[in-house]
Parts: sequence; structure tokens; C-alpha cells
Amino acid sequence: MTKLDRWLLPDGIEEVLPAEAACIETARRQILDLFNRWGYDLVIPPHVEFIDALLTGSAQDLDLQTFKTVDPLSGRLLGFRSDITPQVTRLDAHWLKEKVPARLCYAGSTLLTKPRAHTTSRSPIQLGAELYGDKSTASDIEIICLMLETLNLAQIKNVHMDLGHVAIFRTLAQASQLSNELEHQLFNALQRKAIDEIVELTSHLPNKEATMFQALTRLCGGKEVIDQAKILLADAPASILKAIDKLAEIAEQIAVRYPHIPLYFDLGELRGYQYHTGIVFAAFIPQVGQSIAQGGRYDSAGIAFGHARPATGFSTDLKTLVNLGEADFCVPQSMIWAPYDHQPSLHQKITELRNQNQRVIQALPHQTLADAIETGCDRHLIFIENSWHIKPIEAGK
Amino acid sequence: MTKLDRWLLPDGIEEVLPAEAACIETARRQILDLFNRWGYDLVIPPHVEFIDALLTGSAQDLDLQTFKTVDPLSGRLLGFRSDITPQVTRLDAHWLKEKVPARLCYAGSTLLTKPRAHTTSRSPIQLGAELYGDKSTASDIEIICLMLETLNLAQIKNVHMDLGHVAIFRTLAQASQLSNELEHQLFNALQRKAIDEIVELTSHLPNKEATMFQALTRLCGGKEVIDQAKILLADAPASILKAIDKLAEIAEQIAVRYPHIPLYFDLGELRGYQYHTGIVFAAFIPQVGQSIAQGGRYDSAGIAFGHARPATGFSTDLKTLVNLGEADFCVPQSMIWAPYDHQPSLHQKITELRNQNQRVIQALPHQTLADAIETGCDRHLIFIENSWHIKPIEAGK
Repeated sequence: MTKLDRWLLPDGIEEVLPAEAACIETARRQILDLFNRWGYDLVIPPHVEFIDALLTGSAQDLDLQTFKTVDPLSGRLLGFRSDITPQVTRLDAHWLKEKVPARLCYAGSTLLTKPRAHTTSRSPIQLGAELYGDKSTASDIEIICLMLETLNLAQIKNVHMDLGHVAIFRTLAQASQLSNELEHQLFNALQRKAIDEIVELTSHLPNKEATMFQALTRLCGGKEVIDQAKILLADAPASILKAIDKLAEIAEQIAVRYPHIPLYFDLGELRGYQYHTGIVFAAFIPQVGQSIAQGGRYDSAGIAFGHARPATGFSTDLKTLVNLGEADFCVPQSMIWAPYDHQPSLHQKITELRNQNQRVIQALPHQTLADAIETGCDRHLIFIENSWHIKPIEAGK
Repeated sequence: MTKLDRWLLPDGIEEVLPAEAACIETARRQILDLFNRWGYDLVIPPHVEFIDALLTGSAQDLDLQTFKTVDPLSGRLLGFRSDITPQVTRLDAHWLKEKVPARLCYAGSTLLTKPRAHTTSRSPIQLGAELYGDKSTASDIEIICLMLETLNLAQIKNVHMDLGHVAIFRTLAQASQLSNELEHQLFNALQRKAIDEIVELTSHLPNKEATMFQALTRLCGGKEVIDQAKILLADAPASILKAIDKLAEIAEQIAVRYPHIPLYFDLGELRGYQYHTGIVFAAFIPQVGQSIAQGGRYDSAGIAFGHARPATGFSTDLKTLVNLGEADFCVPQSMIWAPYDHQPSLHQKITELRNQNQRVIQALPHQTLADAIETGCDRHLIFIENSWHIKPIEAGK
């Protein structure tokens, strides 16, 4: 590697320089404060864990996304987290063991072997909130509202939301006693809305069942989808109709509280199918192909750690929010320049100003007011009549 | 791996639960705000880089400390950072290319294959500040002061500081034309203050030179060491006497500003010898064997990225500061309990309170005031005379 390309970073791995870093830090604090006001407690899971813990249970679809390395102390395989939710689930299941619902949140870097899409990062700063211990739609509604408040804080404009429910397809597949392989093939075809493939894959099923699988590809659109679903899936197991009712209930509450946000339904959308167990949702904005925030219910995830309880949550990427939002996280700071001088009275004055929350830069030897301007200072300290005073820096002087 | 031990973490890799996480987050903000008031700009380097960039030049002693993995996109070896300073140096050398001095700071997780000491973490949250572009003692003094202010903010009590200067030994070794191997052996013996070994290793040298190497083991103690050094190293190259003068100057300024902090000198102490080029310093407290904050000058590090400039900085570990300091970072928060109710007037009231920075938890279906108490709420919202009012929760009711 030559000197000139030593600074190159791997594709999709970013570093953040001062101007953007200041915005990201402000956004991080404001969003964690929002989570806090909603009653969510911060947890800090580690960046690496044993691969068995990280990818256990329903998180196995993360396997290909996860960087692995060997731990020289234990001789065992470690993974660098590619998602924080499974870690928080482990924390809830193992440590907290609370009877009352727990509200937890986090903010931290993750690493992906492959970007989720061509243009997206392999090192997102994942932010999210999870609610454990309640199976009612009230907690799904709370989580979706908190996600929308997060997007609102970042001033992400023109958000629309997609809603789905993975239990509809899963229950149909179980009722039809599909093999794992066929379920997987159908799942794939459904993601591509490949109706011809679905017709072929379901051709051996009773007509009623095949029709319902095929209907899933068409059950997408506005709130009329709910009524269509009740008709097209009328012969499905009762739990499917219950799932549709839950979806309708959640959508209705969101529409009341956020009437300006368009809601779309897609009953063939199975985001995080291996992981989720109920409602799934995602927020989109125009001109961006990927969802900018997403989540759903994952009631059985904690079982791998011996303590399953109902769970619902959402996550987003801090860098995406800062880049796509219109919020002004970067308020330019005024800075005061202090001369290079060992006088105790100057140190006292600088300390005083910093304690008053002023940003004060002390000159290094041989620096001049021109350096003060280049450093970005707009005021400076000068000694007049036995004490230090703040005066504006006048350019050209 | 059975269900019961899936939650086990690798030795030295910690997760942080809510109570401690709240303290760590508060400490992180307060310290970054301190850095900001001193004029240091935050940067966010990535958690992984190509190993050539991460371990290049003077950072090669980090090699054994660094977890490695293969990047499937490039086929090249990546390292998880075990130290952030080399990354910040690369940022300064490559991106910032400023003529005026740059003040940069950071806070982020690092990962170590082996703990630095038996009891220390393999996943510290490294915090630090670096000053690039000035070779005077003024910047060393500023960095040491900022380190002491950081410890002071965390209310770390009974701090004392060790000061050394790696150029003294290095210049002696160069002047004596030691082979790399002999320099390395002498370095090791010096770290253990193994005077007999040093006598033997230097037995072939002219008496004057051998005596100076041996003197280094004795040059430790209070400020009398400076005068002793000037006598014992009187025949050394002029640059060594200059280095001693610089050390004395730095110590004098620190003593003026922090008269309560005991300063010790140790001219045989070569902390970070491969990396550092000038003064080295470390802060200690009684009963803790490892330094709790440390740093020094590393003027040549940027050269590996094609743009060397003078540099000095310090780093510490956020978790250590929170655990060992007496600062009360965790102010308990008062929480308000809102009933489970879809009334728009309730949502409005909750939003209002949250906008006023109150922490409000809304009940989930079937939760009672007993749950409110268990969740930690001390007040609740009740509907009286057509509006919502905050009342204290009375236990037993």
C-alpha cells in the first residue's frame, strides 16, 4: 500500500469530519432525549459477542451480514454486531426479567459485510427503541408514534408508511401444511409479486388455499385493502382475520394522530420474515428506494435466551436522518480567541468564560489574529485598564 | 451452546444496563462539551479500517491488540480499531490539511484482543483530544490541562501524574549507535528497572555512555530529578538537555495551575515508545495499578499518510471515569404516569408535558397504579373537572 492510498476506507465504511460530526452528535442527543421523555431507558450492548449469542434463534438471517473473527482468549468465534435489536432482546430476557413492560433504547455503530442496497452504508449508526412485555396493539401504536416523532424531530418531509403483517402469510402456510422449502419459494415469489410463479407453486393446493396465496400479491394499496382482505381471506383461519383487525386498529389510531402521513397496506410484504411475528412497518420518503426507518413485532425472539415475552420496536440510522432531514442540527458556534500569555489573570478569565459555556481557544506561540480568524473566532480577549475584555475581531486588522 | 449460557459475553467485553448507561451517557456529553468549550472539534472515525491504514507507521505496536477479519467486498484484511488516536492522525493528515493548528476530539468504543491488565476491559469507550500543528510546550501544557480538567469533571480524587520524555533514551541510543536489537533489549530492561541487566547490556560501551543509560533507572522521583538529570546527563547530546528543559517547563506550568496534583518524573519510563517522540504523561490514582488517563507527543505519526505535523494528545476510558470518579452523573428522573386512554385531550396533555421536558410513560392496557410505582413513576395524570391534572402517586392506594 503506498503512502497515497493508506487513507482509503473500505467501500461503505465512512468517517465523519468535524462539521458533520457536530450535527450527528446534536441529533443523537436530541433523539435519545426524545426516547427518554417517552420513558425509554438507554442500554449499551457491546460491539462484539459470541456468534452463537448474536445470531441465535430468530436472528439467523443476520449470519451473512455479520463480520466474524476469532477470540484469542476463548478460541471461539466472535461476531461484530450487524443489528442491535437481538442484543437488546437478550438484555431484556436475561438481565431485566421484569414483570412490568420494559422500554429500552440504544444508539450505536453496526457493521455489515454487504450494504443493504447499492448506495447504502456498511457502517450505519443504528438508533432504536423496543417495548417488551405487552402483546396489545397499544405498544405497536406507541412504537410507530415514537418512530414518526423521531422522523419529525429530524424534519424528514413527505414521509409515508407501509404496513404489513407477517402472521397472515405464515398462518396460511401452516394451514396449508407447506414444506419449509415450498414456504421459502412462495415467500420469495411473493416478495417479487411474481403472480405466475405463485400460481404454479400453489397449483397442487386446494383451490381455496391457492386463491388466498395469490390474493396476497394484490392486497396492497390504501385503507380499502383492509375490507378487500376480509373478503378475499374470509375462509382463512380465524387468527388471520384477527391479524387483519389488529392491523386496521393500529392504522386507525396512527391516522388519527398523524393525519398528514399517508398509510399504505401491503399484506404480501414480509419484511424481516424470519424475525418478525406480527405487524411490520416501514417509513419511506420520495426518491429514496430504501426505507428510512422500520420495525415490527417479534414476540418469540427472547425464547432463545430462555425468557420470551412480547416485543415490538423500530430502528433507523442516525446518519440517514441527519442527511435526509431538514432539521438544523448544526448551529454555528461563536468562538473567543485568547492570546498566548501565562498571566494567571488570563487563565482565570478563560476558565470563567468556559464555565459560562463559551468556546474559548487559546493562541499557541507566534499565532496572530489572522490565525484567530482562520480558526473561526469572531471575538477576542484583550487586556485594557487592568482587566480582560471581549471585543469583536475586526477583519483586516 | 445451551439456552442458559447463550447470554454469556466474552471475557472483558461488557454490556451496560439502564442505570449505568444513563450515567455513561451523561458523562459522555459533559466531557465532549468540555472538549468543545476548549475548542476541540468532534470527529467520528469508523470502527473498522483496512489493516494497512490502521496499523501503519508508528501504530505497529497495536498489531497484536487488533482483531482482524476479511472484507468480502474487497478481499482485504480489516482491523477493528484498538486505539482511536492513529485514526484521528490519519484524518488530520489526509482530510484537514490545515495550516493553522487543529484541535480534534473523539469518543467511541475500541476492542482489544487482550486486556491491557488482568482486570481491565477489552471494550473500553475511548475518549480523547489531540492537538496537531504546534511543536511548542504550550500545546503539551494545554493537553495535560485538558486531561486534568476531564478527571476533575468526573471527580476523580487523589490524582497524581507521571512525566517522562522518550526522546532522552532514544537520543542516547542513537548517539551510542546501538543496534535495533540492543536498543530493544535495553528498552525492556529499563522498563523493569533491571539495573544489573542494563550494566551488562552496556558493558561494551564507553564508560560515559554506559553510565548515562544506567542513570536513567535512577532518574525518578520529585522535581529534584530535573536537576539530577542535568548533572548525570551533562555529557549527553544537546538535544537531551533541551528535552529536560522542556519537561521542566511543562511541569512548572502544570504545578502553577494545579498545585494540588503531585508530579513525579521518571526518565526511564517509555510509555508508547514506538509511537511517541517527546513528552509522555499518565495520571494515576491510589489502589489502581493502571494509569487512568495518558498521552504524549507523537510528532512523526502523520508521515505514514504523507503529511506529518507536530502532534500531542491524551486519551482515557469513559467507563473507568464513571466507575472511579465521584461525580454524580446519574440524577434520578421524576416520571409521570398517564392512563391507557385514547382521548385526544390526553394525548395533547402528554405531548405538552414531554415538550416541557417531562418524562411521561403511558400505561398499556390492563396496567394499574401498582405498575406505575413499579415502573418508577412518582406522579400521574388524572382527569378532574374536564381537564388533566398531575397528582402525586400515593403508595398503597
